[in-house]
Amino acid sequence: MDRIEKKARKYFGTEVTARDRAIFEGAITLGAIFHQFTGLPLTKSLIPLIQETIEKTMSVQPFIQKIKVKINEDEVRDYAHTYDYSVLSGDILELEVISQYENARVHLGMKYVEDLDYPLMFIKKIEEI
Amino acid sequence: MDRIEKKARKYFGTEVTARDRAIFEGAITLGAIFHQFTGLPLTKSLIPLIQETIEKTMSVQPFIQKIKVKINEDEVRDYAHTYDYSVLSGDILELEVISQYENARVHLGMKYVEDLDYPLMFIKKIEEI
Amino acid sequence: MDRIEKKARKYFGTEVTARDRAIFEGAITLGAIFHQFTGLPLTKSLIPLIQETIEKTMSVQPFIQKIKVKINEDEVRDYAHTYDYSVLSGDILELEVISQYENARVHLGMKYVEDLDYPLMFIKKIEEI
Amino acid sequence: MDRIEKKARKYFGTEVTARDRAIFEGAITLGAIFHQFTGLPLTKSLIPLIQETIEKTMSVQPFIQKIKVKINEDEVRDYAHTYDYSVLSGDILELEVISQYENARVHLGMKYVEDLDYPLMFIKKIEEI
Repeated sequence: MDRIEKKARKYFGTEVTARDRAIFEGAITLGAIFHQFTGLPLTKSLIPLIQETIEKTMSVQPFIQKIKVKINEDEVRDYAHTYDYSVLSGDILELEVISQYENARVHLGMKYVEDLDYPLMFIKKIEEI
Repeated sequence: MDRIEKKARKYFGTEVTARDRAIFEGAITLGAIFHQFTGLPLTKSLIPLIQETIEKTMSVQPFIQKIKVKINEDEVRDYAHTYDYSVLSGDILELEVISQYENARVHLGMKYVEDLDYPLMFIKKIEEI
Repeated sequence: MDRIEKKARKYFGTEVTARDRAIFEGAITLGAIFHQFTGLPLTKSLIPLIQETIEKTMSVQPFIQKIKVKINEDEVRDYAHTYDYSVLSGDILELEVISQYENARVHLGMKYVEDLDYPLMFIKKIEEI
Repeated sequence: MDRIEKKARKYFGTEVTARDRAIFEGAITLGAIFHQFTGLPLTKSLIPLIQETIEKTMSVQPFIQKIKVKINEDEVRDYAHTYDYSVLSGDILELEVISQYENARVHLGMKYVEDLDYPLMFIKKIEEI
């Protein structure tokens, strides 16, 4: 553990494991992405740029290894006139986040679940590496 | 586990424990609060209202039991003239979140750590109840 | 014009009138409200608190005299279970803003217009007072 | 005026001129940018991507002709360790927006004014074209 992480580690309970921590860091990023980018104006042609920007900016958060963003193109309007564009919301956004702390790697995700009418965040897999 | 939670549970890996889940849900809320409310205009006299609103709105998120928000009053400007107000940011915001999933209860927090020049999020305590 | 406003005024073109300025300040606040609060979790019972918080926080912006927020209750979910809540978006939000600069007072608004499938912002009335 | 704009125009007072409207639309976008992107994590190397994304996404808003975003690189941290990154805020953000409605073109801006300790938004120039 480096000198900087030692300073941070003091704020965590001693019972907190690498697994706990990896889940914690990945989940923060899921919540952060949703609430930072909801409301963003978008059109079909801007989707690749927006996906890249979310992936790269939110990957600077601690212990995030990878982010994959998918905006559901079929639900995005096509800019046929002045007022014809969409706004980013949870029901058109799909996320994959991989976080890692020491030897614990966690795969997390978000997707809109029709059955719940809810953009559900979830832990897909927890690995020891 | 109720009928609705069963539907959600299918998206989680089978290795995910109550402890994992409680950490996950609390951490989402920490990330969400930061990115939802950063940028909010505020003055000293509005602090109690804003604290209450953050606490109550973000407590509707899944498995959040309690949120306590503290905005550092000493750092908030006093509205002596038209342009004299503050904007909510991580260095004046302190958070306590308690999440619970089944028998696992987790105490999480955020506070600005001068030593890191960073609004650190952390897990204070994990309880089995 | 007070000393502080003189400092700000230097950044504006000399052709900018009180009418221009009042429109400008009110419109900023409309854009600000939409993009600050979109994504906020809410339930029916939280509507009065959220309305009050938007009104009071965004009224600290320069030259805003009054804000009236109406969240369309019929479109807000009722919290029957863990995942059953809404998220604030432009189609359930109605705004009235009054801005004033010197003798110019402007009434602005936002409402979802079904015909455009768009949360339209508009200038209702410009008064000289 | 096209068919769609006619539908929108009904919500505006009859006294609203092209000049009023161009100011209105540009100002909305200034307020929107500030409150949408405040809180975004960033490092020096991400500045060009973020600038482009703000410019392109916010240009889909009605009657916006051009947006130029400048993030003050000197104030952005350099990612020497896990917690060493910045968060977008008004004091490191400079904006230029050009809006146009019919024959009225308006140049608007935002920059941090040290003298006011405030990220001031302003109307630089109003043109008839």
